[in-house]
Amino acid sequence: MLKYPKPLEDLIEDFTKLPSVGKKSAERFALYVYTKLSQESTEGFAKHLMDVKQNIRLCKNCGNICEDEECSICKDASRNHKQILVVETIKDLYTIENVNEYQGIYHVLNGAISFSKGIGIHDLNIESLIELVKKNQLDEIILATNATLEGETTARYIKELLSDYPIKITRIAHGLPVGGEMSYADEMTLLKAMEGRREY
Amino acid sequence: MLKYPKPLEDLIEDFTKLPSVGKKSAERFALYVYTKLSQESTEGFAKHLMDVKQNIRLCKNCGNICEDEECSICKDASRNHKQILVVETIKDLYTIENVNEYQGIYHVLNGAISFSKGIGIHDLNIESLIELVKKNQLDEIILATNATLEGETTARYIKELLSDYPIKITRIAHGLPVGGEMSYADEMTLLKAMEGRREY
Repeated sequence: MLKYPKPLEDLIEDFTKLPSVGKKSAERFALYVYTKLSQESTEGFAKHLMDVKQNIRLCKNCGNICEDEECSICKDASRNHKQILVVETIKDLYTIENVNEYQGIYHVLNGAISFSKGIGIHDLNIESLIELVKKNQLDEIILATNATLEGETTARYIKELLSDYPIKITRIAHGLPVGGEMSYADEMTLLKAMEGRREY
Repeated sequence: MLKYPKPLEDLIEDFTKLPSVGKKSAERFALYVYTKLSQESTEGFAKHLMDVKQNIRLCKNCGNICEDEECSICKDASRNHKQILVVETIKDLYTIENVNEYQGIYHVLNGAISFSKGIGIHDLNIESLIELVKKNQLDEIILATNATLEGETTARYIKELLSDYPIKITRIAHGLPVGGEMSYADEMTLLKAMEGRREY
């Protein structure tokens, strides 16, 4: 087996660490960097990798990413600070935010409880959410964790932790996706859709 | 539209420059770097990007990548230096080399003639191949450019350039892939397979 020169092998290994990047793609990426990417672009790429680690921080309130102490959403006085939408990841926050409908603020858990992966409550950003509820007069906590075993476990756990506080706790609806055909839906989605049915 | 913090946006843009990486994948990669990749791994990644640009060079003979002046294949005295296999890319060289059958040496063109992309002969590593033929008593040039319009054009062009030299010029066979079913083959492959038929 002919091996690539050491610097290229190293870079290939770095690329394979990225989600869903296999050996073949990593090879293509590394060869692309060597053969096609300009010196300037490569320097920028290397610099931006470090910048992301050094200059991005988590919002002290909600756990969203930002460059300051507080993120732009938490800073925005026009938003409803008494309504908190709880998501697993930053990506989920961006997904919901970009629908341009929600006017409250967020709380990012940074994952979900997973027994199989050994992720417990102390690995997640849950305590600060409880503190928030304790110290403030909030209206609603919307649990928008995923409809997976981990997401459901996490949602239930948070609901239990907050059961003593006079706050409305809701869970986002799960059911058939809009435009989706019944026959293509999986069993769990159909069950959830039936469970969540409303008067018509 | 909620935008990511500047350092993350920059890194997302870098990732989209890689082949077949769209906006969504680039976002996942960049968020992964921020949330999951250790400080140490990120520093390594940045360093390796620069290393690839600084410490890899092209073999002075064949155009393969290496860390020295000459690649390990050209240095290998046990190989047949009178048989040269011409490929479009370094990746093609590795693909053939890793079949572990070929015992000659290589010549990497670094692309193929493409009128649509404006890639002419002077953008390719062709002249050094001609020089090689002029100066040495070679036995065979195997043209292993792709079976595409560009690859065929390039192969024909090289054949023409070398027509005055007493050297055997061959083209790798194109036809039905082994294990492939006839009914799945495209028209061009079938034509090539018919054209290249041999007595049985």
